[in-house]
Amino acid sequence: MSEIRLDVLAIGDAVVDVIATADDEFLIQEGLVKGSMRVLAPEEATRLYAHMGPARETSGGSAANTMAGIAALGGKAGFVGLVAADQLGEVFAHDIRAQGVEFATPASRDGVPTGRCLILVTPDAQRTMNTFPGAAHRLSTDVLDHEQIRGAAILYLEAYLWRAEAPRAAMKAAMKVAADAGRKVAFTLSDIALIALHRQEFLDLIGSGAIDMLFANEAEARALAGTDDLDAAIAMIAPQVRMLVVTCGSRGAMAVAGEERASIPAIWIEEVVDTTGAGDLFAAGFLVGQAQGKSLEQSLRIGAGAAAEIISHFGARPEVDLRPLVEAA
Amino acid sequence: MSEIRLDVLAIGDAVVDVIATADDEFLIQEGLVKGSMRVLAPEEATRLYAHMGPARETSGGSAANTMAGIAALGGKAGFVGLVAADQLGEVFAHDIRAQGVEFATPASRDGVPTGRCLILVTPDAQRTMNTFPGAAHRLSTDVLDHEQIRGAAILYLEAYLWRAEAPRAAMKAAMKVAADAGRKVAFTLSDIALIALHRQEFLDLIGSGAIDMLFANEAEARALAGTDDLDAAIAMIAPQVRMLVVTCGSRGAMAVAGEERASIPAIWIEEVVDTTGAGDLFAAGFLVGQAQGKSLEQSLRIGAGAAAEIISHFGARPEVDLRPLVEAA
Repeated sequence: MSEIRLDVLAIGDAVVDVIATADDEFLIQEGLVKGSMRVLAPEEATRLYAHMGPARETSGGSAANTMAGIAALGGKAGFVGLVAADQLGEVFAHDIRAQGVEFATPASRDGVPTGRCLILVTPDAQRTMNTFPGAAHRLSTDVLDHEQIRGAAILYLEAYLWRAEAPRAAMKAAMKVAADAGRKVAFTLSDIALIALHRQEFLDLIGSGAIDMLFANEAEARALAGTDDLDAAIAMIAPQVRMLVVTCGSRGAMAVAGEERASIPAIWIEEVVDTTGAGDLFAAGFLVGQAQGKSLEQSLRIGAGAAAEIISHFGARPEVDLRPLVEAA
Repeated sequence: MSEIRLDVLAIGDAVVDVIATADDEFLIQEGLVKGSMRVLAPEEATRLYAHMGPARETSGGSAANTMAGIAALGGKAGFVGLVAADQLGEVFAHDIRAQGVEFATPASRDGVPTGRCLILVTPDAQRTMNTFPGAAHRLSTDVLDHEQIRGAAILYLEAYLWRAEAPRAAMKAAMKVAADAGRKVAFTLSDIALIALHRQEFLDLIGSGAIDMLFANEAEARALAGTDDLDAAIAMIAPQVRMLVVTCGSRGAMAVAGEERASIPAIWIEEVVDTTGAGDLFAAGFLVGQAQGKSLEQSLRIGAGAAAEIISHFGARPEVDLRPLVEAA
């Protein structure tokens, strides 16, 4: 039996975010749907980048952001994801390790560059994401370290990576390793567009009892359940997972675990700059709360605090030490 | 006779800034002098980067920042500088072009990567810069486009680039092209460390009448003149240039042009985040003022306004449209 040495190990997209501000007009001209995520072919990424304004780069990736958040909150996190042996790959590897996250996946050398997410932030602080996944979607079962998976209390998976075949196989293999070792499996639905593509697979996955903790936002929960009624969606999904966590944007968040239920309001912050990473950091806070044996409500509060920090600046990686949030809970 | 189509054309370091926060303790451990700039060998850069915290990347380079500022202020700017044909080179080229600056220098393919500046920002908002110049210092006379130089009212040169032989030769050649076409030459002293290395050359350059506008901060002006007394330094330097502009940090700035003299206080801003680029953006504002026929005092005010914007966020490239500053002056 392996010893547990990590609170959470994630498998996710390893990408660098390229963040520019844009107005609504620009989104319309480029045919982009505000708030959405879409996957770009290399030539589409080149074209959009050429049209975008001056940008700043920060490491990103949904589950990677969550692991960076866990480390910033004082938890022990690991990350599995594929970058290329190029400059942006170095940036990604530097940032996640410098944040204190274990990251040991060797960089790929097959010529496919490190993935990027071109993010347009409109004046209303909404983010529209355009991902060129590059090397990230070449992740395969080869890179899995079974001992590392067994060494984490929770395996955390992002639906963004479900799109591509090789990473999907790797995530399925990792889930089995985790389950066989008695570890918990957490899954985030990531984006409503993925539910359109993979709804039945996700329903089967949840129905099989493979998912202990499911993270979703309101829209994703409704789409997964196939109903417009959030309460009905929760009533349908919650019994199939040990714990269901649903974020409701500026209206707060809720968690259901068996008979137990908790909800909290969102934290009001003066100036929302960029909502990128809000869900990722919310998950980080909730997971740290759970790892430290906090109640559902306390875990939700830590999540809300971490989300509030991330939306107060550009970029989805924490800029300050978040440990006081855990102490305050 | 070429037509003038640019307000300013700069030759400078083409680098990407890698910005992390750090405490004073870290600077001491790494043997760094707060507020200074030093040039790193590749292995030193690798070592320091590995020790630094998570970072964000934005395009940088002193004169390049100034040109980006001029474009953000509504002026017409061009930039000459060398990046490599790599990912960070693409980032640099994208950002400066997306800002509206003419940038046509072809990327180098000799294997030396695009330059980086590792910037540590302490809680007092001071920046300590560690530059790995890479391709930037391979710039040579080959890349100069004489027609482009003749097409700019002012040629702007940064002393940072004076360190390396090939770019120094390129800057000297460009000065001659500009002077022969009756254009003005502006020079910024960049950093006190450069005066220690090149004082006599700079004095000879100024003494020869080759410099029309000289930009310096207080410490640089004193070091160049070889006196601790700022008034004495100004009295020594000012008669040798058509215009001398001296920034005095939080105490404002002054300009001397023959018998004319103006000075202004700094603009008070609530939260100084990162002082990187303050001098660069000050120069941008002053140059735009001069290009638009504003008075010395008005030009200083535009410079102070642009500097105030840049120190309110991480990174040395403007994040907002700065044109209202020019209208206000």
